[in-house]
Amino acid sequence: MSRFHDPQDPLFKRLNASISFDIRLAPYDIAASRAHARMLAGLGVLDADELTAILGGLDAVAAELESGAFEVHPDDEDVHMAVERRLTELIGPAGGKLHTARSRNDQVATDLALFVRERSAEARRRCAELMAALLELAERHRDWPMPAYTHLQRAQPVYLGHHLLAYFWMLARDAQRFAAAEQAAGAMPLGAGAGAGLNWQVDRAAVAGELGFDSIVPNSIDAVSNRDFALDYLYAAAACATHLSRLGAEIVLWTSEEFGFLRLGDAFSSGSSIMPQKRNPDAAELLRAKAPRIAADLAALLGVTHGLPLTYNKDLQEDKEPLFDAADTIELCLAAAAGMLGAAEFDRERLAAGAADELLAATDLADLLVRRGVPFREAHGVVGGLVREALERGAKLSELSQQDLAKHSAELDLDAVREALTGDRCLESKVSPGGTASDRLAEQLTAAHAALAGLGA
Amino acid sequence: MSRFHDPQDPLFKRLNASISFDIRLAPYDIAASRAHARMLAGLGVLDADELTAILGGLDAVAAELESGAFEVHPDDEDVHMAVERRLTELIGPAGGKLHTARSRNDQVATDLALFVRERSAEARRRCAELMAALLELAERHRDWPMPAYTHLQRAQPVYLGHHLLAYFWMLARDAQRFAAAEQAAGAMPLGAGAGAGLNWQVDRAAVAGELGFDSIVPNSIDAVSNRDFALDYLYAAAACATHLSRLGAEIVLWTSEEFGFLRLGDAFSSGSSIMPQKRNPDAAELLRAKAPRIAADLAALLGVTHGLPLTYNKDLQEDKEPLFDAADTIELCLAAAAGMLGAAEFDRERLAAGAADELLAATDLADLLVRRGVPFREAHGVVGGLVREALERGAKLSELSQQDLAKHSAELDLDAVREALTGDRCLESKVSPGGTASDRLAEQLTAAHAALAGLGA
Amino acid sequence: MSRFHDPQDPLFKRLNASISFDIRLAPYDIAASRAHARMLAGLGVLDADELTAILGGLDAVAAELESGAFEVHPDDEDVHMAVERRLTELIGPAGGKLHTARSRNDQVATDLALFVRERSAEARRRCAELMAALLELAERHRDWPMPAYTHLQRAQPVYLGHHLLAYFWMLARDAQRFAAAEQAAGAMPLGAGAGAGLNWQVDRAAVAGELGFDSIVPNSIDAVSNRDFALDYLYAAAACATHLSRLGAEIVLWTSEEFGFLRLGDAFSSGSSIMPQKRNPDAAELLRAKAPRIAADLAALLGVTHGLPLTYNKDLQEDKEPLFDAADTIELCLAAAAGMLGAAEFDRERLAAGAADELLAATDLADLLVRRGVPFREAHGVVGGLVREALERGAKLSELSQQDLAKHSAELDLDAVREALTGDRCLESKVSPGGTASDRLAEQLTAAHAALAGLGA
Amino acid sequence: MSRFHDPQDPLFKRLNASISFDIRLAPYDIAASRAHARMLAGLGVLDADELTAILGGLDAVAAELESGAFEVHPDDEDVHMAVERRLTELIGPAGGKLHTARSRNDQVATDLALFVRERSAEARRRCAELMAALLELAERHRDWPMPAYTHLQRAQPVYLGHHLLAYFWMLARDAQRFAAAEQAAGAMPLGAGAGAGLNWQVDRAAVAGELGFDSIVPNSIDAVSNRDFALDYLYAAAACATHLSRLGAEIVLWTSEEFGFLRLGDAFSSGSSIMPQKRNPDAAELLRAKAPRIAADLAALLGVTHGLPLTYNKDLQEDKEPLFDAADTIELCLAAAAGMLGAAEFDRERLAAGAADELLAATDLADLLVRRGVPFREAHGVVGGLVREALERGAKLSELSQQDLAKHSAELDLDAVREALTGDRCLESKVSPGGTASDRLAEQLTAAHAALAGLGA
Repeated sequence: MSRFHDPQDPLFKRLNASISFDIRLAPYDIAASRAHARMLAGLGVLDADELTAILGGLDAVAAELESGAFEVHPDDEDVHMAVERRLTELIGPAGGKLHTARSRNDQVATDLALFVRERSAEARRRCAELMAALLELAERHRDWPMPAYTHLQRAQPVYLGHHLLAYFWMLARDAQRFAAAEQAAGAMPLGAGAGAGLNWQVDRAAVAGELGFDSIVPNSIDAVSNRDFALDYLYAAAACATHLSRLGAEIVLWTSEEFGFLRLGDAFSSGSSIMPQKRNPDAAELLRAKAPRIAADLAALLGVTHGLPLTYNKDLQEDKEPLFDAADTIELCLAAAAGMLGAAEFDRERLAAGAADELLAATDLADLLVRRGVPFREAHGVVGGLVREALERGAKLSELSQQDLAKHSAELDLDAVREALTGDRCLESKVSPGGTASDRLAEQLTAAHAALAGLGA
Repeated sequence: MSRFHDPQDPLFKRLNASISFDIRLAPYDIAASRAHARMLAGLGVLDADELTAILGGLDAVAAELESGAFEVHPDDEDVHMAVERRLTELIGPAGGKLHTARSRNDQVATDLALFVRERSAEARRRCAELMAALLELAERHRDWPMPAYTHLQRAQPVYLGHHLLAYFWMLARDAQRFAAAEQAAGAMPLGAGAGAGLNWQVDRAAVAGELGFDSIVPNSIDAVSNRDFALDYLYAAAACATHLSRLGAEIVLWTSEEFGFLRLGDAFSSGSSIMPQKRNPDAAELLRAKAPRIAADLAALLGVTHGLPLTYNKDLQEDKEPLFDAADTIELCLAAAAGMLGAAEFDRERLAAGAADELLAATDLADLLVRRGVPFREAHGVVGGLVREALERGAKLSELSQQDLAKHSAELDLDAVREALTGDRCLESKVSPGGTASDRLAEQLTAAHAALAGLGA
Repeated sequence: MSRFHDPQDPLFKRLNASISFDIRLAPYDIAASRAHARMLAGLGVLDADELTAILGGLDAVAAELESGAFEVHPDDEDVHMAVERRLTELIGPAGGKLHTARSRNDQVATDLALFVRERSAEARRRCAELMAALLELAERHRDWPMPAYTHLQRAQPVYLGHHLLAYFWMLARDAQRFAAAEQAAGAMPLGAGAGAGLNWQVDRAAVAGELGFDSIVPNSIDAVSNRDFALDYLYAAAACATHLSRLGAEIVLWTSEEFGFLRLGDAFSSGSSIMPQKRNPDAAELLRAKAPRIAADLAALLGVTHGLPLTYNKDLQEDKEPLFDAADTIELCLAAAAGMLGAAEFDRERLAAGAADELLAATDLADLLVRRGVPFREAHGVVGGLVREALERGAKLSELSQQDLAKHSAELDLDAVREALTGDRCLESKVSPGGTASDRLAEQLTAAHAALAGLGA
Repeated sequence: MSRFHDPQDPLFKRLNASISFDIRLAPYDIAASRAHARMLAGLGVLDADELTAILGGLDAVAAELESGAFEVHPDDEDVHMAVERRLTELIGPAGGKLHTARSRNDQVATDLALFVRERSAEARRRCAELMAALLELAERHRDWPMPAYTHLQRAQPVYLGHHLLAYFWMLARDAQRFAAAEQAAGAMPLGAGAGAGLNWQVDRAAVAGELGFDSIVPNSIDAVSNRDFALDYLYAAAACATHLSRLGAEIVLWTSEEFGFLRLGDAFSSGSSIMPQKRNPDAAELLRAKAPRIAADLAALLGVTHGLPLTYNKDLQEDKEPLFDAADTIELCLAAAAGMLGAAEFDRERLAAGAADELLAATDLADLLVRRGVPFREAHGVVGGLVREALERGAKLSELSQQDLAKHSAELDLDAVREALTGDRCLESKVSPGGTASDRLAEQLTAAHAALAGLGA
């Protein structure tokens, strides 16, 4: 930059340079440069030879980057300058024509939008893979009773397949959010120049089409100052990671000796450096632990754009690291979750034992009374009294006698009570749409298959 | 609850009770109870008289709430219990039948979803109002030159209308995000019971239709443990508030003596308690300051659901306060921003003076060289040299002589340079789609009208 | 403010006014006004009668506030204006002299510092109360074995008292952080005026002494723009709440049917609206859920001060709500935690059963080999092999024969192995300082008593 | 780990391994291993030859790490295993004895505490360097008038040196917070083993002394589950970064054409890729932008420990990356800020012009009336009226006539008013302690020198 006499201070360079992390955008930068070069040729800024030279040079730079032969120069401030510098080394002054009719301001926004589009699509694919794994698992365990918990207290029995599908639907929403991020990144910033537009009648729509964008950003200032699409991605990733953290937390619980519902495969377990007996669910713990990290990535970028005047400010350089971190993390977590579940074995007996607790049918007893005309609020009180009596006597509900029942309500008879407490009665009575009864679960599995197919990921 | 001998500890009550804030959900709770009662009548749980009594009682409770006559009882733990308690006081034991076939778990999720639907629609309306205000302002100032800034350094001139439209497009995206939140809250949780489903063949779709939901949640466990729609709302609000914080920051800048671009109306200005001369842009500062608050609301709810096992846990009670706070805050901010802009006056001369700085046409000089065959990178260097020479001599660019120009490049002639530096040349040359040139801006205004109309808010 | 012609817009008023929440600062505001009035009398700005009138008037305002008789006027923008307005109504124009030599800028910072000092001291007291409850509990359960967990897998047995003391030390650090916040709020802002200092030779040190401050802020600009003490409080509260969230999470685990280590008293349990058998640990869940809320309060205020130019900006009005929320929340959580623990009963047998798992002594077997010269890494492998063999044969480690042992290592003999696996051997062998062995635990209890006494709260 | 049959899944390894980032802890890990080995020799676990071999081997590993010759092995899960693996390769089976009487749980906590101690001390040193730079600058500009702003509106004139010292005091508090973090990391975790303590009578105090710790953690469970010291560091860094963000924001403002108060050196300025005239304050913008990043690092670790049961959980592996990021970022920012300020030049005339605005003396006019017996509230109104009249007539306050003054107050005479508006009167009248008057500023500079010396950094 010829305006300046003095070289940049090394400290300033270290603070200012983004090449150490934005080099990752090189494939997008080069793709955008190819389209931009063709557009410049259309404008007459480049002649045919220059265009050929530039396209060839960009291919060469891309090859160097891919092979690892590309050498970052100490003065390469960012990926854009590095690519142009190398291009010009390779093809001579024609390389200096490439930056006509663009600015790093619209260039970086374009690179980042391309990144978000690609990673959103990939995240959606990985959501779909995990959904498929959950669906397969749900079908395989569609008739395994287990206790559902509220407040981590056993509440009512459900089928394990039903429980697993709860995660399926969470991920279906996550996939939608990633799709929204992909769409949000679908308007091309390139062509906005530094912020005011360009001194050239460029065909932005054609460039957009070539790069796979849906449209162009309609305002040049917004084009260079907007990072909403990155926020949308970060939010989608944060919500998804939070879902995975719930899954991770449940797996940690379930693999504990006390619950004993699940055994992770060796391939997804860790030992201890000191305790030879340990079999630790490290992967599940990390699923749990990654959510705050991605939520923090989102918070960071919201914070960076807080109170920022238009148009481009250097602050926006801080958009990349949280975005890259979130993308790497969520993609790995989704894949690891699918792998971990694939290698897990549930313990049918432990699950069933938890589900067999008669107390979990207390709601059913209350509803029995309701069917006999007792208002629910009163029925709830009656059954609460029965529960207390049984617990204090150390008896099961089904061990109470007709006289015991009569003390609490005239509407209770032994046969009906015992029937309500029998076997899978309590599961199969959950017949409301979306409930755990087998027919309802079958409907839900069908719906899940349709949802997965509809995702088309 | 008859299971317990001892009353709750006062400290526990204070920690546990949500009535002080969830009373706000009463209108939704009552609406859902009306639909639920009709469904129970369809099931035969309520007879016609009971249904009439319950619907009348709910009307009475609603009237008490609206008039302020409703008295919260010390034992009212939450809005659901308070409404049922009062209903039963008013109509007798039939009130105790209303809680048949539902749980507070699905009830509160339903109330909250209704809240999110209503507030999302309202936020969208307010986005549209602010967009309309911006659009009107942009049309009125479509030909007022001002400097656009990058790095808060004057970069290139743009029309004020163009600058204001950048905010229009941000808000258009915000409106979309609120629409997504509204849609995410469109699946009704009610009918999931405590989490496993109900012992009743309920017609959830009919209830959903009556309440204005689009569909029902397909999995009972997900229905009671999911708060994604609240997160979606919070994220939409956080992104929107962050946009408003940028607007606020610019207004603060622009009303400073140094910039002097804007004068807020008295109705949106504050004085000082000590300095009689002050005219402070408090509203703009608060727009700036509210973004971290709403981002924190989002972070709080992401944090609450982090690592939370299924299904319902009391932790989810912490969903309401951040949500209510975000809704109140963003709605007020959107309305205040529209009001503030409506009462603001721009200073045409100060804006124009900033735009008239010849240095802002430096890019145009570089492009002039490009048109004469000089590679842009070289042209950039040539003009950088011109700028340095002018600054060091304390001259304007247009005051450089032909000889001065010749020292830097053989391709520069005085006439072309001076023409490039003349009047609005530099604005009208920004002809790329989305650029600030008048014709492009006219297109953009048309597109903005269409976008606003399409919002249908 | 006579500079303005037009009244403030209602929307602006709603956004701008802080009286709805900062009225809470009234006691501090009045205390500071009393000291300020005395200082003004010393300067000669107030004569004796005026001082008497003002002090009497402030007492009357304070009484109205305490009794609830104080009426907020629609034009009362904030607590400072409300108090001055009411004072002037009560005592006439002399009230208008009170704002001499101060600004709301230094006034609000002073009020807030007084608030932080008082709430920090209170939080420290509540930490000490909870520490005392933990210590009492630890002494009572000093010899109850339980399994310690890593990765939620049983790792090694410890005494329950030892485990409980871990929380004691966390809270000791929290108390220190609250002390740091109290100290950070110890420099009085009052006397800085609007930011440049005052046109009066005021005796700030005397005012500070009267208000209980340790010193005065040495720079007037810093005095009005600094909110570090509020951040320090928020951080202390966030760290403390995070500790309580760990305690809450463990109580939720321990009260589950599967763990069964703990039974909360009725006074700290909740029932279910639908499931009569439930006994839910709501208070513990809320302890867990409040941490993200307070962390968000901290994030909000960090965000508000991000990028804020000096000196005072209206943004700083956003300091109060997060601070008040954090103070109310952490104080309630600390008290509720102490109450909940006081009413809890541990189940000695369930705890002991978990601790009796022989696998938890695997490290001791490895160390046995080490004492016989086997490198630990090899010993770890040997015992890992023993564990696998035992698990695959469904046998306990103590059921392995001498031949079995010999297959794995020549250094293992039956007697030594069985002894290592006997009774509390494994607990009492943890003799390193800070370990769980009884003697070490006794030392730790002594140290805890000393730490609590040293807290002097 | 011989408990397992199957190798770890590659996805699991990628998720689980921390070696890519915790290799950075190697120097601390090796230092701790040296002390641990000496302790083991004292216990008799190592004989003299083994100790010599281990110490020599550790030196060799350290040398490999420093030279870059150290090769990470695909199975090196973390730094601890990598160092032990390499040690054993170098010295044979004796290497396998080193892990006696320790666990990775206490080892990693110890490494991290050592890291926090070292980085805290370094951050404190860099705070001191920046404080020294600010102090030098303040002294050099102790008599340069400038406008102080509230609400970004000119409020009252101050000396630039006074303004700069506001940052000095912020940094003094930051240095204190880093000192608190250093102290918090002063209790050694090593010796806690996996969490229950060790089967060995180890002399933890001796090891602590050798490693420079102040004390040992008194509870083995707390030792392995506590990360408070990392939080303390992150909070200190977040508060400091937020202060720097305010400095950055002001520099961005001040280097704008509109303010023109400051010119950054070429060595701390950037050009534009498209606009040859630009001189961008990138470093200042990045100072502003880094605060949300570090605040997010803090939020991430608070989130990770939220609701985490004791003792060690794999989640804690997520402590390192935010900590490392915060340390690198804040150290660079502190150094760059000092460098940038050192190379900056203030524009005395532009600053003075802003300060010369007569309206900034409005408070002085009000105080003039107060001295003549007018209550401040009334005086404030009188001067407000004067200001309005002057503004509406386009006159300066000093241009109002005696008649003009008389219309507003009988207490105002032309001479006194004009004197109050003269020259530096308004600055030198700010005589309250901490005010900007020269004598007060001189006192403050003395206090600042003392504070800096007291820091001893």
